[in-house]
Amino acid sequence: MAGGVGSRFWPISRNSRPKQFLDILGTGKTFIRSTFERFLPLVPVENFLVVTNTAYCDLVLREIPELERHQVLCEPIGRNTAPCIAYAAFRLRAADPEAVMIVTPSDHFVVDEAEFREVVSEAAGFIDTHHSLMTIGVEPTYPNTGYGYIQVDNSGQMSEQIYKVKTFTEKPPLEMAAAFIESGEFYWNSGIFIWKPDVIIREIKRSLPEMYDLFESIAPYYNTPEEAEFIRTIHPECKAVSVDVGIMEKTDNTYVRVCRSGWSDIGTWGSLYEHSEKDQNGNVLSADTALFDTRNCIIKVPEDKMVVIESLENYIVVDSGDVLMICPKDHEQNIKKYIEEVKFNKGDKFI
Amino acid sequence: MAGGVGSRFWPISRNSRPKQFLDILGTGKTFIRSTFERFLPLVPVENFLVVTNTAYCDLVLREIPELERHQVLCEPIGRNTAPCIAYAAFRLRAADPEAVMIVTPSDHFVVDEAEFREVVSEAAGFIDTHHSLMTIGVEPTYPNTGYGYIQVDNSGQMSEQIYKVKTFTEKPPLEMAAAFIESGEFYWNSGIFIWKPDVIIREIKRSLPEMYDLFESIAPYYNTPEEAEFIRTIHPECKAVSVDVGIMEKTDNTYVRVCRSGWSDIGTWGSLYEHSEKDQNGNVLSADTALFDTRNCIIKVPEDKMVVIESLENYIVVDSGDVLMICPKDHEQNIKKYIEEVKFNKGDKFI
Repeated sequence: MAGGVGSRFWPISRNSRPKQFLDILGTGKTFIRSTFERFLPLVPVENFLVVTNTAYCDLVLREIPELERHQVLCEPIGRNTAPCIAYAAFRLRAADPEAVMIVTPSDHFVVDEAEFREVVSEAAGFIDTHHSLMTIGVEPTYPNTGYGYIQVDNSGQMSEQIYKVKTFTEKPPLEMAAAFIESGEFYWNSGIFIWKPDVIIREIKRSLPEMYDLFESIAPYYNTPEEAEFIRTIHPECKAVSVDVGIMEKTDNTYVRVCRSGWSDIGTWGSLYEHSEKDQNGNVLSADTALFDTRNCIIKVPEDKMVVIESLENYIVVDSGDVLMICPKDHEQNIKKYIEEVKFNKGDKFI
Repeated sequence: MAGGVGSRFWPISRNSRPKQFLDILGTGKTFIRSTFERFLPLVPVENFLVVTNTAYCDLVLREIPELERHQVLCEPIGRNTAPCIAYAAFRLRAADPEAVMIVTPSDHFVVDEAEFREVVSEAAGFIDTHHSLMTIGVEPTYPNTGYGYIQVDNSGQMSEQIYKVKTFTEKPPLEMAAAFIESGEFYWNSGIFIWKPDVIIREIKRSLPEMYDLFESIAPYYNTPEEAEFIRTIHPECKAVSVDVGIMEKTDNTYVRVCRSGWSDIGTWGSLYEHSEKDQNGNVLSADTALFDTRNCIIKVPEDKMVVIESLENYIVVDSGDVLMICPKDHEQNIKKYIEEVKFNKGDKFI
């Protein structure tokens, strides 16, 4: 899944180059490239499918030149994750209804990739023999209020690391998140799913029947030259809904494979800060700097730029080339307000 | 005089483009161009001489294409203002010992240019008939500790606005500056001088005899094709000294013409702030901005850059393209420290 237009890393992330196509962590690889390489030991190149917006098709192929054009599924407009997953599931079912389908966002960060692959492998093995849905749940390390949480049913434990899912809860308030963690029954919802196309399509039919009808209506055309044209017709008719809200919260046929190694969706400057190397004063740096009396800042500028700062604490300083943004780290939720203001005054030029 | 390499506006001012070649005030004209145009109604184009460093000769001619190459006097190295003025005085004396010579820095700001020209005209008229030195003294508006002060001898008043000079005082402490202003006897030393070449050369001979000997030794070659080559030989032998310390403080033959309209040497970000237009929150802006809770800042970035800032007060934010500097306005004296640090780590690349 590589269709997001996320604005939380503005001004670095832009409509024309959203987060999955950026190397925000400074690893030397974009998120989408890292995601591809993370799964490559498990999945033959020809079995990858990338669902993205039509506007990003070329970006996908530039980042993953190993793919053929037909492996990039283009959505004419963004409609959240349910239609994205439905499209890939219908395409895959037409080719092989018994395939095991792994669904993953393309902009996440995983600390121990080998451990992560073992988790996914075991989940895929489970799904090969169970007609169920499965999600990867990450052992929480603190009460993050931006994540979804999965509650497990300890009486439904299938193996050491696989549990029956009891509930899904989106973005809880802080006290609730803390109570979740205290209980030991909750895991972060990573947004990574494993299932067979047949099984998820059955769930789509049950919970999102109109969406099912739309994708089913063009069943003869998947994997044919006409597919793209028909998708352009039916896809905009789908309602925008996430797979969590549209499907996962409405089924009791889901299991979770627990992952106990580090993972983050790097969804905010704050989580970028948490997962980045820091200097002795707690600053996350991306360039040559001369800092005086400056602590706990994130400084992100073009790599050939020199940065001199005195007396700044807990700020985000981002220079995207055409935009300079300076704001307190704990005000980063205001970035949407900044974008609105810039858009109001200057149109889409800097968006 | 256009040879300075001033670092106080770093990172905007650079060794390769010092302040006189910049439009720091955003007037649409560089300081040197503004200076040229300020004097143009008084002085025929062919009578201008610009003394600068060899490295800036092309910059001068680009800013003032009206000049012929021979009107740009090139110093091989910076030696402060006394050798600069000596060179121009010897050159001018060789052409016309009775000329009236107006000496001016090329990086100052004048509010009322017409009023300023009247001041200079009256001073030039006085010098035409008096074998004296003359300086323009600016009525002080506050106890600036970065300027030099001229004390006048009220008993030696020659006209409504012309006084005999009693003392020169460089950069006094704050209490002294305040007492100066209180007394009514002191004026800011603008660094603008009017005299005949013959008279100033006599003073150089008296106060700086070694420097006099050097320039006198090549007397036959001024205004000849050999001049530049001889200057390259003798000029580096001069000791570095300002005209104020080397000559003005050692003579009692100086008058001051008082100027009562606005003037500033715009020597610091602070004085730039004072002389610039501000938004309703006291910010000096040079680009498109979206500011939230941000007051009394100077924001200077390339003109096509968008700036978004939240929660910053009394800061200087400067983006020169390759350098981003953020520091409190009242720490601007630390810029020299920043430059040293950058130079230590990165060499001359950003200097």
